[in-house]
Amino acid sequence: MKKRIRLTVAYDGTRYSGWQYQPNASTIEGELNRAIGEVTGEKSQVIGASRTDAGVHALCNVAVFDTESRIPGNRFSYALNGHLPEDIRVMESEETFPDFHPRHCNSRKTYEYRIQNAEMPDPTKRLYSLFSYDKFDVSAMQKAAAYLEGEHDFKSFCSAGAVVETTVRTLYLAEVEKSGKNIVIRVQGNGFLYNMVRIIAGTLMEVGTGRRKPESIPDIINALDRRAAGPTAPARGLILVRYDFEE
Amino acid sequence: MKKRIRLTVAYDGTRYSGWQYQPNASTIEGELNRAIGEVTGEKSQVIGASRTDAGVHALCNVAVFDTESRIPGNRFSYALNGHLPEDIRVMESEETFPDFHPRHCNSRKTYEYRIQNAEMPDPTKRLYSLFSYDKFDVSAMQKAAAYLEGEHDFKSFCSAGAVVETTVRTLYLAEVEKSGKNIVIRVQGNGFLYNMVRIIAGTLMEVGTGRRKPESIPDIINALDRRAAGPTAPARGLILVRYDFEE
Repeated sequence: MKKRIRLTVAYDGTRYSGWQYQPNASTIEGELNRAIGEVTGEKSQVIGASRTDAGVHALCNVAVFDTESRIPGNRFSYALNGHLPEDIRVMESEETFPDFHPRHCNSRKTYEYRIQNAEMPDPTKRLYSLFSYDKFDVSAMQKAAAYLEGEHDFKSFCSAGAVVETTVRTLYLAEVEKSGKNIVIRVQGNGFLYNMVRIIAGTLMEVGTGRRKPESIPDIINALDRRAAGPTAPARGLILVRYDFEE
Repeated sequence: MKKRIRLTVAYDGTRYSGWQYQPNASTIEGELNRAIGEVTGEKSQVIGASRTDAGVHALCNVAVFDTESRIPGNRFSYALNGHLPEDIRVMESEETFPDFHPRHCNSRKTYEYRIQNAEMPDPTKRLYSLFSYDKFDVSAMQKAAAYLEGEHDFKSFCSAGAVVETTVRTLYLAEVEKSGKNIVIRVQGNGFLYNMVRIIAGTLMEVGTGRRKPESIPDIINALDRRAAGPTAPARGLILVRYDFEE
């Protein structure tokens, strides 16, 4: 009997060309499809919740697939991990509703953008944060972030080339924390546009270094123009840290 | 005029065959000698403080070399980093006494052995910690660690093949901390035998899982026999975190 399995997937995105399947590149989706095929003997296609970019990491992306396999839902994590490379792990698996589609339901995603802010970069942190020796005014960044919270048209924070019905999104949270040499930009929202978190990070970093004022954020939003915002920060600092589905 | 430069070196040991130069393998020492040669035009040989094993990481290893270069001592870090791979960074450089030898002077080294203790391994932590889903009794590990503090003959905690005058060492500190899913074994001493911290970690982990009692540690020390102690824990969890020289 057919059943739908939901996977919680963590990965180090460093050596992948992102989530989405590509015929001639290593992707998270491609690795999962291959591993599921090896475990079930079926040809499977996962549906991913968040199609993260090349180099972006995740602690808890979500994917579903259908199978006739008799492996119990909660054992798939162990079975699949035996067929996946060490930098991709299925953290949890369970049987879910046959009509559960991770992109067609209400959800909240939380991303962190991590900055290692020191004089010299610690090599053991290089893969999971952006290094910068700039002096950042964290309270200015916090003030700027607060303007991003709420429902806005985030067109200025969306890279060209994205095809979406609407660029309106809601951010439930946009905060900046500093602890020791680490600065974390944390955003939670009901959906994110293409490169949105990385453009937010690039813009807030320009506020931190004084190139922009916190009060400029409403103008950037109102411009509805990608050129009004700051640069797209590099992928290595971005981590999908939490996924909540509203049942 | 000849001067002696002291470097503080951090590295991700993952892809290196350890510190010490080997003709046909990538080593930290080999990379430093090459970079110094490229920067100064001289043929240099660094002297390292701690000759860490393959796969072991460091935040602050120390190396010295002599040069006639006119580059100021405190600028070598920037110059060398331009010629080093991203997983090795010179964190600090300075001119030091011409007779300063990092292995012939009193020092205290602090190592951490990091364990990621969870049901499933977080791939973004896999390179810098050992994963284990075992249940650990951390207070038993703490009790066991306390027996290691002080001056002892640590022969039982030394891998065969090491040529040393004496296996007596002093541990100023041996502690175990748990915070969330991370367990850290931290030891500070005036010197460490070959594989000593990794054997301590392997032994304390066996105490944690109940295979050994904390009270067995004095017997292990007194045995003066490597076979009395636990296994050598894998290199990836070991990080040299601090180096203090007594002037």
